[in-house]
Amino acid sequence: MTSMPSTKTAPLMRHPAIYTDYYELTMAQGYFLAGRKDERACFDYFFRENPFEGGYVVFGGLSDLVDLLEEFRFHEDELQYLADQGFRDDFLEFLRDFRLSVDIWAAREGEIVFPYCPILRVEGTIIEAQILETLILNILNFESLIATKAARMKYAAGSRTVMDFGLRRAQGYGGIQASKAAIIGGVESTSNVYASFTHGIPASGTMAHSWVQSFDDELTAFRKYADYYPDNCILLVDTYNTLESGVPNAIKVARELEASGHRLIGIRLDSGDLAYLSRQTRRQLDEAGLDYVKIAASNQLDERLIKSLISQQAPIDLFGVGTRLVTGYESPALDGVYKLSSVNNEPKLKISENIEKTTLPGRKKVMRYIDDHGKFHGDGIILAEGDDGSIIHHPFYPAKKTDVTSFKAEPLLHRVYRDGKLQIDPPAATESARYLQRRMKKLNPEHKRFENPHIYKVGISRKLMDLRDTLTEKMK
Amino acid sequence: MTSMPSTKTAPLMRHPAIYTDYYELTMAQGYFLAGRKDERACFDYFFRENPFEGGYVVFGGLSDLVDLLEEFRFHEDELQYLADQGFRDDFLEFLRDFRLSVDIWAAREGEIVFPYCPILRVEGTIIEAQILETLILNILNFESLIATKAARMKYAAGSRTVMDFGLRRAQGYGGIQASKAAIIGGVESTSNVYASFTHGIPASGTMAHSWVQSFDDELTAFRKYADYYPDNCILLVDTYNTLESGVPNAIKVARELEASGHRLIGIRLDSGDLAYLSRQTRRQLDEAGLDYVKIAASNQLDERLIKSLISQQAPIDLFGVGTRLVTGYESPALDGVYKLSSVNNEPKLKISENIEKTTLPGRKKVMRYIDDHGKFHGDGIILAEGDDGSIIHHPFYPAKKTDVTSFKAEPLLHRVYRDGKLQIDPPAATESARYLQRRMKKLNPEHKRFENPHIYKVGISRKLMDLRDTLTEKMK
Repeated sequence: MTSMPSTKTAPLMRHPAIYTDYYELTMAQGYFLAGRKDERACFDYFFRENPFEGGYVVFGGLSDLVDLLEEFRFHEDELQYLADQGFRDDFLEFLRDFRLSVDIWAAREGEIVFPYCPILRVEGTIIEAQILETLILNILNFESLIATKAARMKYAAGSRTVMDFGLRRAQGYGGIQASKAAIIGGVESTSNVYASFTHGIPASGTMAHSWVQSFDDELTAFRKYADYYPDNCILLVDTYNTLESGVPNAIKVARELEASGHRLIGIRLDSGDLAYLSRQTRRQLDEAGLDYVKIAASNQLDERLIKSLISQQAPIDLFGVGTRLVTGYESPALDGVYKLSSVNNEPKLKISENIEKTTLPGRKKVMRYIDDHGKFHGDGIILAEGDDGSIIHHPFYPAKKTDVTSFKAEPLLHRVYRDGKLQIDPPAATESARYLQRRMKKLNPEHKRFENPHIYKVGISRKLMDLRDTLTEKMK
Repeated sequence: MTSMPSTKTAPLMRHPAIYTDYYELTMAQGYFLAGRKDERACFDYFFRENPFEGGYVVFGGLSDLVDLLEEFRFHEDELQYLADQGFRDDFLEFLRDFRLSVDIWAAREGEIVFPYCPILRVEGTIIEAQILETLILNILNFESLIATKAARMKYAAGSRTVMDFGLRRAQGYGGIQASKAAIIGGVESTSNVYASFTHGIPASGTMAHSWVQSFDDELTAFRKYADYYPDNCILLVDTYNTLESGVPNAIKVARELEASGHRLIGIRLDSGDLAYLSRQTRRQLDEAGLDYVKIAASNQLDERLIKSLISQQAPIDLFGVGTRLVTGYESPALDGVYKLSSVNNEPKLKISENIEKTTLPGRKKVMRYIDDHGKFHGDGIILAEGDDGSIIHHPFYPAKKTDVTSFKAEPLLHRVYRDGKLQIDPPAATESARYLQRRMKKLNPEHKRFENPHIYKVGISRKLMDLRDTLTEKMK
C-alpha cells in the first residue's frame, strides 16, 4: 500500500509555479528589484489563426488550468533550486510567501472562439500576471487544439460514435490532457485509463491483435473473450483474414452468445479498405441475422476520412481515432499568445511591421452578437469600460463596419478569479462537452465545413481602434 | 510549507500502472481467467519509418520509462476505480500483489536506430508483457521523436548553440519530456524550469517583449535589466524597431556594462528577416567595438531554416527553437509499435497483406556492423539463440544479401531488467547526449542529410527469414 494521495484530489502537477519559462522568473526578479512588485498589469490570451484550416476553435483547458492555479506556490525544494541558479535571497523570500491575487476573466470551457478575441484576461500585480504566462499558454493552447480537432471529428461522424484510442502515439504525458480535451470536443469515450480515472470520463476497449495471436486459433481467441465479456464484446477481426476468417468466426461466436442469452456488441476493422470491408462485413452479418452487431473501424482516421467513409455509405457505427486526434497532426500547435495590454491602467501595445501582429491595447471585453434566428453573427472586442461598442469595425480595414445595436449581445468572458479566489466550479469534461454541443447549434454550418470555411466576423470598437492607432502613432 | 515529496526523487507520474489503454486490462483479465497468467510472452518495440523524411532516429525515453517501471504497481484507489468499471474481485486481488518480473533488453538511450530493428524487447508473463505496451509506446515514441528532431537541429547548427524555448507551445505536460528529449538530441539548454528542476538540465532565459513594454522606454528597460543581470544579459531588441532603436540602445547598455567591468552577452532577434537583421546587427555591434556580443535568433525556426541561415552566412551564434522542436511539427508522432513475437517460446507473427507490415517472429537481437573506418555499415536482426547471422538479407528482397563476417559486430540491445530488477543506472539526459554525439561521428553523413538521405542497411538473418516465411505459409 502506498501513502501517496490520490490524483483524484491532487492535480497531476505538484510544481505548477515552476512549470514555466526561465525568463518569467528573471523578469519577475527584475520587477521585484526595480521596486515594481505592487504595480498592476493586464494580459490577454488569444490566438491569431484557426488550426486545421478550420473556421473556429473550441476553448479547452480552463478546468485543468484552474486546478493548477489552486496549487500555485513555491515550495522549498523549488526555492532551493532557484537559489542554486543564482536568484537572490530577498526575491526568494518574496516567492516563499507568494500567493496569487489575480483577477481572471475567461470564456467558458467548451465555448466556440475565434482569432484575435481575448479568450482569457489576467489582471494582477505585474509579477503574478507575468509568471503565469507559460502555464496558461501551455495548457490552453494544447487543450483548445485537441478539443477543436475532436469537435471536427465529431461533426464529421454525426450521430455515429467517436472513440479516442490515441494514448500510445500521444506526445508523452500530454496524452492525459489530449484525452480530456477530446471529450470536451465531443468524443464519446477514451482508451486512456489514467484520464478516465482522474477526470471521470468514460473509458472503453476490448482486445488487440496480440490477444488473437496468443491463442492457437482465432475462433478460440474470440470464444474465450466472449466467455469472459459476454455483454461487452467487440471482436477484432483482421489479425489473419478479415472476410474469410475474422468475420465468419465472429458470426459463430455471436450465435453462441445468442444461445446463452447475450449479444455480441460489435466487430472492429483495423486495416485494409474500410469502406469495402465494412460493406462486406455488414452483408455477412446481416445475412446471418446479426443486424444488431455494430461495426467499429480504426486506422489513421481523421475528420476528412470519416467524412469520406460516410459519403461512401460505409456502414461503420463507431470510429476509433488515435494519432490524428491526440497530436492535432497537421496543426500540432495552436498559436495562442499572451500579450501585455496595460500597466497601472495605462494601455500598452506591441507594434509590429505587420499590423495583424500589433496587439490591442487596454482592458477589453468581448461581446458575442446573436441574430434573430439565435445564431452567432460575430464577435466584437471593445474596451472594458466606457465603450458602448455600437459600431464594430474590421480590425485592419476600418471602412468595413457593422452597427450591432440590433443584435442581442452576450459577454463572452466570465469571472473565474477575484483577488486570487476561485469564483467558479471548474466544469467536468462531459459538462463542457454538453455546453459545446449547445453552442455548435448556434454556429452557422458555413463556419463548420472543412474546405474554405466562411470567416467568422470579429471586429473592434471605434474607441479601441482609435486607442490602438493613437498609441501606434505616438510610439513611432 | 508542503509535505509532498519532491519530484526529484518521486517520478512525475504516480499512476504508471493505469497510464495505459483500457484493452490492456481487459486482455490481462482475460489471460488471468483463462488460467494463462504464468505463460510467457515476448514483445518487440520498433518503428517502421524515420520521421521528418530523415535517415535515422535517436532513441530517447529509456530513462523516463525506467523511472515509471520502478513505480509500477496498482494502488488501492486505482483498484477501486477498476472495481467500479466491473473488473472481477479475483483479478483485482491478483493486481493488488502484482509486481513486474520482466526481462527487458534495450538499446542505449541516445543510440542511433533504424526502422524495423527491435529497439527494446520485453519478456515476461503474458500479462505483464502485455500491459506495459501503452506505457512503453507513449514514452519511447515521443521522446525518440523529439530527440531526433533536436539532433537534426543541432546537426544543422554545427558549433552554434541551440536553445529550447518550446514549453508554451508544447503538447501540454508532454513539454516536460520534450525538453528532456531535446537535451538528449543535442540542444544545449531549455527555457523549461520544470524540466531543469526535475532532470538537472541547464535552463536559460532573459526577457520577453513585455519587459520592454512595461517600462516607459526601451533604453530604461535594457538598463534596468543590465543592472540586475550584468553578467547574464541578453537584450531583446525587436519590440519597437530593431535596427533604429533596439540595437543602438543595446550598444549604449553594452558600453555602460563595459564601464562597470561587465560584458553584454548578447542581443536577441525574434522577428523579421533574420538573415538581413543579423547581418546589420553584427555590423552595428562590430563598428561599436562589440565583437564579443553574441546574436541570438528565434521565430519559428527548424533545422531547414537554421541550415538556410547558416548557408546565407547569417552571423547568428545562438538559435532559439520552439514549436517546431517540441511538437515534431511536420511529423508529430513516431510510428513505433509493440508486437508479440513469441508465446511460451513459440514464435508468433502477425500477417499483413503488406509484407512490410508482417512482423518478425521469435526472440531476436540486433547486431550493428562497423566497417574498417569505424563507421556504421548496417544492422542485422537475428534470432537471439542459435543464429550465427553471417549472411544478412534484405527483409523483403531476399536476393539482396551481404556477408557480414568481415565486419566488427556490436550487439545493440543491452539488459535493462532481469526478473523485474533494474540492471542499469538510468542515464542523465546530458549523459545520453554525449553518447549520441560519439555515435553521430560513426554515422556516415549521407544518412544525416535532410534531402533524400541514403537508406541505412537493415537486414535479417537467413534463419529469421526462413522462420518468418514458414510461419506465414503455415498460417495461410
